Amino acid sequence: MKKNSIAIFDSGFGGLTAMRHIRALLPQENIIYFGDTARLPYGNKSPETLFNYCVENVSFLLEQQIKVLVIACHTACTTALERLKDKYPIPIIGIMEQGIEEVIHSTRTQKIAIIGTRTTIASNVYQQRIKEKLPSAEIHAVACPLFVPLVEEGFCDHPIASLIIKEYFSPLQNTDIDTLLLGCTHYPLLQSLIRKELGDAVILIDPAIGCAEKTRQLLVEHALLNTGQESPQYTFYVSDDPDKFRVLGQTFLNCPIDTIYLSARQ
Amino acid sequence: MKKNSIAIFDSGFGGLTAMRHIRALLPQENIIYFGDTARLPYGNKSPETLFNYCVENVSFLLEQQIKVLVIACHTACTTALERLKDKYPIPIIGIMEQGIEEVIHSTRTQKIAIIGTRTTIASNVYQQRIKEKLPSAEIHAVACPLFVPLVEEGFCDHPIASLIIKEYFSPLQNTDIDTLLLGCTHYPLLQSLIRKELGDAVILIDPAIGCAEKTRQLLVEHALLNTGQESPQYTFYVSDDPDKFRVLGQTFLNCPIDTIYLSARQ
Repeated sequence: MKKNSIAIFDSGFGGLTAMRHIRALLPQENIIYFGDTARLPYGNKSPETLFNYCVENVSFLLEQQIKVLVIACHTACTTALERLKDKYPIPIIGIMEQGIEEVIHSTRTQKIAIIGTRTTIASNVYQQRIKEKLPSAEIHAVACPLFVPLVEEGFCDHPIASLIIKEYFSPLQNTDIDTLLLGCTHYPLLQSLIRKELGDAVILIDPAIGCAEKTRQLLVEHALLNTGQESPQYTFYVSDDPDKFRVLGQTFLNCPIDTIYLSARQ
Repeated sequence: MKKNSIAIFDSGFGGLTAMRHIRALLPQENIIYFGDTARLPYGNKSPETLFNYCVENVSFLLEQQIKVLVIACHTACTTALERLKDKYPIPIIGIMEQGIEEVIHSTRTQKIAIIGTRTTIASNVYQQRIKEKLPSAEIHAVACPLFVPLVEEGFCDHPIASLIIKEYFSPLQNTDIDTLLLGCTHYPLLQSLIRKELGDAVILIDPAIGCAEKTRQLLVEHALLNTGQESPQYTFYVSDDPDKFRVLGQTFLNCPIDTIYLSARQ
């Protein structure tokens, strides 16, 4: 029943913003989503702990007979993506890689901002990977750890969110950035307020869009596209509290979520 | 070396505000502190998951030859305290119980506010336990889930914290409460801004103070006070990222933290 699925893994809810784009672009594909809600957030945990969590979660997903795995969590990507690719014999797409590609493609002035969780920014992975392609790039990396709880509180359009954005973005004043990477899957939900703060001249990169396109390309290349006529199945697993996932998840996915399974407790 | 210690357990850093009072009141006692930093925060996890985490963590502490255990996390108390007391043959003090006693002792008008994490407030435990003693009490319970990340971001005196307090406290306007319980060990760090918002007439209860007194009483009753002349030892364990614990922990404990051990990874 679940064979031949795309698997998407995130620390919790954020990856549903990526699932939204994958579902739109590949409407015939079955999708299995796993959110590690018992241990979220990932953004303030150490790389070694996160790697252990990722291994447990990817092992769980591999039991579901999936054909491709999307790591839709920037923090998990920056701390574990390469090691996961080495460890598992399945195509793995990291949302981070699409972010890097799109930033490089978008910037004209090479003045770039990256925003993400504390662990993502501290990893320095985005900064290094962009520098490999654009050695003279001027990169401003800003950790925005309150953005995740703000979004999870439903404060996406609240004056408090505007104030916090203004506070975090103060180091970006007078930097003349032309491109900003939304380096956390929660952040697209703050996009309209971020746009207000930065003005229309700055290009905002939501890597979830490129991630969906990359998934499509990979399925085409490997002749793995689902060509059947049946309606696709969407299956959700979480490690804690399916009811909360349903309520909040619908905001992220922008459609109803019916059945959610609780994975073995971590 | 660690024999005869008071153990304090919290999801992460918050319980250090309780340790601060215990250390001041019982300066001759050895203290072992455990913070479950690999899985914090507890305030948005389900009761069953939290019970499992508590069992693992208390089992770890019992291996350290402790004489009394203080559960210095309100969310852990509301979801697991009674079951932990049934399960383990050691005196256990829950910070929650001191909160309830002090609220009952403090209120004159029986108009009471309780603030805490989402899971603490949803558990309804505080509300029920106060109602048992004061059946006609008018209780206003408010979840303040952004307070923990605010404190962990070091925004304790920031204008953003004032705004968020104002937002969360809007249901308390015109309620004429005379007592407010700080039902999370992070919240005492926001006490001065909360005081500004509520004015001087409302009594703020920090249960950590009563928790320290209760610990002293229990040691006296059981003839467990440390009467030796040696300097006390303070031992810290965390399940993730000792370096981050050191930096943030010093704010909570209000003194330097030297050695921190990483427990077996959860």
